[in-house]
Amino acid sequence: MQINIHQTHHTIGDFDNIFTYLKNLIEKSEDSKDLFVFPELFLTGYPLQDLCLQRSFIERYEDLLAKIDALRNPKMPTMLIGGLEYEMDDHGIPLKIRNVIYEFNSSGLKPLYTKKLLPNYDIFDEQKYFSAGNKNTIYNFEGHTFGLLICEDMWMSSMHSTDPVKELFEEVQAEDIQLDGVINLSASPFYLGKDKTRLIRASEISQLFGCPFIYTNRVGGEDEILFDGSSFVVNGAKLTHRAKFYQKDILSYQLEKFSGEIDHKKALNDKVNSWESLFKANISKNEGGEFRLPELTDEDCEEILQSLRFGIQEYARKSGFKNFDVALSGGIDSALVLAIMKLSLEENQNLEAIFMPGFFSATMSYDLSFEMCKKIGVKLSTFPIKFAHSSLRNQYNDVFKDPMEGLCDENIQSRLRGAILYARSNQRNSMVLNTSNKSELSVGYSTLYGDSVGAISPLGDLYKTEVFALSRYINKKYGEIIPNGIIDRPPSAELREDQEDSQSLPEYPVLDTILEGLLSYRLSTGDLIEMGLNNEEVSKVFKLYSRSEYKRKQFCPIIKIKAKSFGTGYRIPICKKN
Amino acid sequence: MQINIHQTHHTIGDFDNIFTYLKNLIEKSEDSKDLFVFPELFLTGYPLQDLCLQRSFIERYEDLLAKIDALRNPKMPTMLIGGLEYEMDDHGIPLKIRNVIYEFNSSGLKPLYTKKLLPNYDIFDEQKYFSAGNKNTIYNFEGHTFGLLICEDMWMSSMHSTDPVKELFEEVQAEDIQLDGVINLSASPFYLGKDKTRLIRASEISQLFGCPFIYTNRVGGEDEILFDGSSFVVNGAKLTHRAKFYQKDILSYQLEKFSGEIDHKKALNDKVNSWESLFKANISKNEGGEFRLPELTDEDCEEILQSLRFGIQEYARKSGFKNFDVALSGGIDSALVLAIMKLSLEENQNLEAIFMPGFFSATMSYDLSFEMCKKIGVKLSTFPIKFAHSSLRNQYNDVFKDPMEGLCDENIQSRLRGAILYARSNQRNSMVLNTSNKSELSVGYSTLYGDSVGAISPLGDLYKTEVFALSRYINKKYGEIIPNGIIDRPPSAELREDQEDSQSLPEYPVLDTILEGLLSYRLSTGDLIEMGLNNEEVSKVFKLYSRSEYKRKQFCPIIKIKAKSFGTGYRIPICKKN
Repeated sequence: MQINIHQTHHTIGDFDNIFTYLKNLIEKSEDSKDLFVFPELFLTGYPLQDLCLQRSFIERYEDLLAKIDALRNPKMPTMLIGGLEYEMDDHGIPLKIRNVIYEFNSSGLKPLYTKKLLPNYDIFDEQKYFSAGNKNTIYNFEGHTFGLLICEDMWMSSMHSTDPVKELFEEVQAEDIQLDGVINLSASPFYLGKDKTRLIRASEISQLFGCPFIYTNRVGGEDEILFDGSSFVVNGAKLTHRAKFYQKDILSYQLEKFSGEIDHKKALNDKVNSWESLFKANISKNEGGEFRLPELTDEDCEEILQSLRFGIQEYARKSGFKNFDVALSGGIDSALVLAIMKLSLEENQNLEAIFMPGFFSATMSYDLSFEMCKKIGVKLSTFPIKFAHSSLRNQYNDVFKDPMEGLCDENIQSRLRGAILYARSNQRNSMVLNTSNKSELSVGYSTLYGDSVGAISPLGDLYKTEVFALSRYINKKYGEIIPNGIIDRPPSAELREDQEDSQSLPEYPVLDTILEGLLSYRLSTGDLIEMGLNNEEVSKVFKLYSRSEYKRKQFCPIIKIKAKSFGTGYRIPICKKN
Repeated sequence: MQINIHQTHHTIGDFDNIFTYLKNLIEKSEDSKDLFVFPELFLTGYPLQDLCLQRSFIERYEDLLAKIDALRNPKMPTMLIGGLEYEMDDHGIPLKIRNVIYEFNSSGLKPLYTKKLLPNYDIFDEQKYFSAGNKNTIYNFEGHTFGLLICEDMWMSSMHSTDPVKELFEEVQAEDIQLDGVINLSASPFYLGKDKTRLIRASEISQLFGCPFIYTNRVGGEDEILFDGSSFVVNGAKLTHRAKFYQKDILSYQLEKFSGEIDHKKALNDKVNSWESLFKANISKNEGGEFRLPELTDEDCEEILQSLRFGIQEYARKSGFKNFDVALSGGIDSALVLAIMKLSLEENQNLEAIFMPGFFSATMSYDLSFEMCKKIGVKLSTFPIKFAHSSLRNQYNDVFKDPMEGLCDENIQSRLRGAILYARSNQRNSMVLNTSNKSELSVGYSTLYGDSVGAISPLGDLYKTEVFALSRYINKKYGEIIPNGIIDRPPSAELREDQEDSQSLPEYPVLDTILEGLLSYRLSTGDLIEMGLNNEEVSKVFKLYSRSEYKRKQFCPIIKIKAKSFGTGYRIPICKKN
């Protein structure tokens, strides 16, 4: 038999297109005996957060279910579709919401299985919204027998109170059933390294049940969270089929017999693959014997690049932007953002760069910005802020009788740039790409409403050392898009005379290592000092990190690249004693 | 016997002061036979969010526990203290975290009871962090018998799978125990009307068990969330003891016999007091027979005023601000914020106002701002933005060859004001009070990085009609602090010629009613139209609301006044199809 894995790509709540997709498929697949499989929550999109509680959304969703049910006909094929099942009280208020697999065939749409493991850590809040299932479903179709799982159900952890894989296995053993496949409907967010972990776990489950593991994931960029697709079939120890990365796709899989060796131990050992292990600090000893954040490999960089391109375009598409603006400073962050945007640009889209020099901008900053834009064919506008800066300063001194200086004089430059950049954005309806990186964000080394502005942040989940690595990778792959002069110069905010980042912050490889330790939640300042990092530097970084929460609260969505990122999955109070 | 209810007020993670508080109390209370009761999570503060997962926090907390345990001595009294209990794996990673009541006496600190009902709706994420308890604790002390509960445990709902009150009652019935009191340790966030609901429920529980209900709450402002204290004892149908509102306090309660009538039904009827009912839309028919948001009463206004004053001061104290800045526009929102801040001002604190007129600011705006500041004795600085605006416009036209106009020309004024306001804030280290209201925020009628800037938003949970009501209330109570001319003039952003809010938005009583329906999540656009609201207006408001999520994501914390507010408890994706 054939299983058609539909790796779909729809906007959350885009019920018209979701309906049309199913309608066309049903019309096209008359009399097909194949099984059609869709991602988790295909019918709604994911993550919905509070949207699934809003009456307007629920009404529209219920209309969709009714319209889909009305599509049923005797010649239609059978589908396994992820969706929500609402249970309402007498007043139409949701009592329970279940994340289910619907079976859809000639007898209509009916829930077949309810997700058992509701992830509730990091970016996940499923226990806030959904009620967990407690029953296995062994699904018989055309003489074949399948185990069903939804996303997190394939995992287990000492934090979870149930282990759906084990429960399914126990039932299969007790009833003496040989499964022909385990089918998992997923909406599984991307981060670097996740795919590998997924494949290992899939292989363990395949070897547990002695059957292929069939995995359907969705594609989409939802604000900060990316879904990369990459649906697959694993048979025993082998990855046998693979769908595209960040593109909708259909994987037609002719069901195969199990090949490999049965192994009951790996999948049921609850020490491996627990999600907590994902949040360990990514720090290891380098060649010099120092604990450091490891460098990104080329493979990592390629994955990151594709993710950022996809994430930016998704946000643009869903918000209706065709124009983009990047403020170039002559430094590496903005140059990298411009390079990524240029590499992401689609037909009918327009990208502009703005260079806004102030009193402390080096000539080199202009030269490098000019060189870069010329090379990659991006229009560069130069908008000096010196005049506005000095006239505002004069007026300020006059109004307040309190000479503008220090931080005040530094930040107003950054905020003027923010205002001009957004004037351009308002005028040509363009999307502003933020240029902050994770290191800056972590220590608050940015100006609120100044260089921290933007619709979305491509680099906010990359440490400064990773910004360098990605820049070098792009130049290696595409030629010198980012002038080497930009990569080689010492980082500076250019807000005062002879300013360099290294005056305020530890050297980046050290800073990034300390940050990785703290942001993983796993290492204390004491742990880091024990690992050989400088006491004073660790304490300083911790203090800067701890006091800058207020800036991060007002930051734009950051495209999520790592297991632990700022944003939805990072929730630290502003006010506290540390 | 005497129960001393300690309504405490500490910053999250302020372990030194928490330790000192206990130490002093123990020294002072030698040989006391009283029972000392503290709030939920007294030892850490609440809500901690991810802080309770961070290694640095955990280490410091474990030190605190060890230090407290070392305070034990044979003459010390007995205490019931809310705190966290960590269960670690072999690597020191938290496996389970429990929200518990510690008994602390001469034999040390030991967990007595684990919270059973972990709220996970709206602002609450306790299931993300904590593992629920499943055992009742009947606590015997000096010949008396108490039932113990932690906060949410006193509630019940069709959404919760357990009902701790019922479970406790069943045990008491089965064992034939007569309780002498039910003690609840709470950290229960404030919102308008919550106290009444709490008292009703307390009375039901008192009448169920036939004993007083003793409730200890904390005091604190945690970013957006306020804890008002208001600890109490309810005996039967009567509120017999009450601690202060928004102030630390100690309530010494001589345990009394039950007075009133036993009623087993009220507390066990699972239809009443479910938390879902809190989120119904606050809309009712007015005298004219139209569905409208009801007006705030004077009592409401007084509660709101005290809450805002407390919330602002808490944020200032915890962030180390002694100076405050408000941008006055001549409109009602900024005038109200200034009035509230003036009424909140403590000794050694300084408040300034800045008026930043543009081309479209009416003379009246200055006159009214001047009049107000003069009357209440606040320094007003006038910083005209016309010059900066026109010179930036000229430069813009010159650089981009694309004349600045429309939205671009409107918003740059607002952003210039934001930059100047924050220059002042940087220069004198002042806290900027945001001046947006909930109606504006809901429809995105504000400029990102412009008038939407601020450290904290006092009015972000009040609709425009409520801003008017609160302003009138303040004038009634304190004399005409806010010039009536400000209250009476038609609202305008003054960003273009003859602009008035009513050109872009429905009249505020209508707008606010529509918003309340949508933001409660309970009413769809269809429901609102059925209730008689104008079809076009409802659709327009829904569209504006739905498209402005990106602005709300970058907004500062809003002091929470209502059951449903923007902020932590409101999670709607930016990108979606509505």
